[in-house]
Amino acid sequence: MAVAAMTSVDGAGTIALDVADGIATITLDRPDRLNAFTPGMAVELVAAFDTTDADDAVRAVIVTGRGRAFCAGADLGGGSTTFVPSQARTVETIDGVPRDLGGVAALRIAASRKPVIAAVNGPAVGVGATMTLPMDVRLAAESARFGFVFARRGLVPEAASSWFLPRVVGISQAMEWVATGRVFPAAEALTGRLVSRVVPDADLLTTARALATEIAENTSAVAVAAARHMMWSMLGAANPWEAHRLDSRVIAALGAGPDVAEGVASFLEKRPPRFTASAGDAVPDLVAEWPPRPDEWGR
Amino acid sequence: MAVAAMTSVDGAGTIALDVADGIATITLDRPDRLNAFTPGMAVELVAAFDTTDADDAVRAVIVTGRGRAFCAGADLGGGSTTFVPSQARTVETIDGVPRDLGGVAALRIAASRKPVIAAVNGPAVGVGATMTLPMDVRLAAESARFGFVFARRGLVPEAASSWFLPRVVGISQAMEWVATGRVFPAAEALTGRLVSRVVPDADLLTTARALATEIAENTSAVAVAAARHMMWSMLGAANPWEAHRLDSRVIAALGAGPDVAEGVASFLEKRPPRFTASAGDAVPDLVAEWPPRPDEWGR
Amino acid sequence: MAVAAMTSVDGAGTIALDVADGIATITLDRPDRLNAFTPGMAVELVAAFDTTDADDAVRAVIVTGRGRAFCAGADLGGGSTTFVPSQARTVETIDGVPRDLGGVAALRIAASRKPVIAAVNGPAVGVGATMTLPMDVRLAAESARFGFVFARRGLVPEAASSWFLPRVVGISQAMEWVATGRVFPAAEALTGRLVSRVVPDADLLTTARALATEIAENTSAVAVAAARHMMWSMLGAANPWEAHRLDSRVIAALGAGPDVAEGVASFLEKRPPRFTASAGDAVPDLVAEWPPRPDEWGR
Repeated sequence: MAVAAMTSVDGAGTIALDVADGIATITLDRPDRLNAFTPGMAVELVAAFDTTDADDAVRAVIVTGRGRAFCAGADLGGGSTTFVPSQARTVETIDGVPRDLGGVAALRIAASRKPVIAAVNGPAVGVGATMTLPMDVRLAAESARFGFVFARRGLVPEAASSWFLPRVVGISQAMEWVATGRVFPAAEALTGRLVSRVVPDADLLTTARALATEIAENTSAVAVAAARHMMWSMLGAANPWEAHRLDSRVIAALGAGPDVAEGVASFLEKRPPRFTASAGDAVPDLVAEWPPRPDEWGR
Repeated sequence: MAVAAMTSVDGAGTIALDVADGIATITLDRPDRLNAFTPGMAVELVAAFDTTDADDAVRAVIVTGRGRAFCAGADLGGGSTTFVPSQARTVETIDGVPRDLGGVAALRIAASRKPVIAAVNGPAVGVGATMTLPMDVRLAAESARFGFVFARRGLVPEAASSWFLPRVVGISQAMEWVATGRVFPAAEALTGRLVSRVVPDADLLTTARALATEIAENTSAVAVAAARHMMWSMLGAANPWEAHRLDSRVIAALGAGPDVAEGVASFLEKRPPRFTASAGDAVPDLVAEWPPRPDEWGR
Repeated sequence: MAVAAMTSVDGAGTIALDVADGIATITLDRPDRLNAFTPGMAVELVAAFDTTDADDAVRAVIVTGRGRAFCAGADLGGGSTTFVPSQARTVETIDGVPRDLGGVAALRIAASRKPVIAAVNGPAVGVGATMTLPMDVRLAAESARFGFVFARRGLVPEAASSWFLPRVVGISQAMEWVATGRVFPAAEALTGRLVSRVVPDADLLTTARALATEIAENTSAVAVAAARHMMWSMLGAANPWEAHRLDSRVIAALGAGPDVAEGVASFLEKRPPRFTASAGDAVPDLVAEWPPRPDEWGR
């Protein structure tokens, strides 16, 4: 995804990226600003996912926040003119319209070849909430809270959340949260299926890492990359024949590869698998770029 | 939406519309017939939502029923010939096929610029159940019960519910209710996610009004109108790039408007916002008619 | 659906089909192999659903497994070369790519004119889990367990499950199960909404039959067939106007038929209905084949 027009934005230091034990941890890292989202952070997030996609040592990605917040939303340091378009001239535009920066980050996360786990350690408000929607799993600490507060600021949900949110929590729950703009606790997020688990604050990263490790230790990287792409892309497909065609082609491609042979052999031999294929091998001609960028927006 | 061909149908008195404190309440008002649905009621509902959309004093709409029922379904006063097409000649047709009147009402509700809350005070059966599906939130009294009873009458679900119901409750729950045609209590509706809350009968309207007030007192009308349109329309979109493009344009349009400036300023000043934009301003060129009417059906 | 190219595959005896009291029961019948899925079983399943569709005595279909498993997944008797494409030359191909056999079965189940209930009596793993997704309702015995284990074998989810699974359980739950490949108990399947009920093992078939009987005794066959088609097909439709157009046409067709007259009359007379129309009458010109087969794959 070309974000060349954004390279003049300096995002250095807005996030941290660490890799250990097959897991990349991306930490939103502006704790003195409650990790408020900036144009620079969007650029850094895109770069971070480029890195985790390219690094075969990474099998899963955890996204969390430094300090007491996950992300307090867009940085309002610019005051009441924060969202006036002319303030955002450094970002890529389409037909003269600046691209929403939350969406730039969200679409890049959606395209990740590695599964992404949000470990929401505190307030996740505005883009701090919507940026988690293209991630695969959301875990919340007990002190987490959430808010799709846009309408309270005169704004609309962004980061392509009008597409993601109703698919994650259902249209009725989505509309209640969006129309009220209320901030709600982790328990309401669990009931409303925004998060899959709520755990004590002290257990959050341990829980996220256990889930990432479950993926890393048991599965084939190329299989997970292909499956992630298939599941998300078919969420927008008109009918299951599209999935059947894709299945047939991917199975034919993977069926002759090393990981299927190893997966079946290790299962029959009742031993752990030793997969060798790379997520980067992910059947490139079959698994096209997703989400597909509209032609008129160029590449 | 043109419903001119239906104006010969007299629906006077089938519903009541009251506006107070920023909230419109539409009451299905044929209590001696358990608020059974008629062609006239469809016409009246369309007109009521035209009114609530146009009235800037209305920030949210509550739909409820007079007396002990919400809506017992289509009025069967015509007996076993009720659904014979020739009985319905006064309604708009497409290619000679009469439009389903439940769908005429449902599509108009779907297009509302104001959030819509169903306060289901008693039986909601047949079109009484399906008409609530394009509403944003469904609250049920303990005495409410629901039934997608169509197959027990030899009919199919209507009011475009084959589109709405699986999106609201999931395809498996939808199919169980539709294939059995069973009538079920509020508790099953809650478990199956058809309603978000069940409250004592005496608390139903209070609860609905509290939710409507939460919207009216805290949010921007134009932001909620745009967000409602975005969330529902993207539910049918193939991929999140469509949402990203729409986000970018709407944010650019709203970002320079008065409500964003007020929303951000009031937040930074820790005071309630005083929004001034109208839902009628809702970025008309960006937020096209939804649901989009097929070209071949004219406008 | 043409599966002519597969008739050379011998599936005799891989499943059993019994019809009684309006209910067809399809039993996966390779208990010594934990009912592992074979090319022959795919052929047999397609034939069984052709039979249940054509038999007016069948009002609902139950699918269960013989012995202690539902279906342990693809038969790995071929060892580590099981999924090498050349092993599957006897099946239908598209542009030289063998069709995924799980998908052949799943798409046929999706097209059923009768509602389908999975009674999962034990392990349902791999294609044993994914084949249940186009069924309408999944009931689980307490001893059931599930696993979308593909990534642990180096494979991707098949049987068009990238389309079905996120629609049944939501994308986040789908991704957690697919990315980890974990095997999970019935209780987790219930929490994650993969199954609608968990019952004691001894009650499983009784529960499934009670649900099938509820359908058989109360509803019109043609209405249920049309409704099933409408609900599943509109799950992939871009907007509710498509449903409205379909509703209007189906209602016009059914409204003049015998079952609507009987359904309304029996309701008004407070007696059980005696429906006479056949599922085979299901408004063939209106309710086109679903899922629609892509043109380039021929018919």
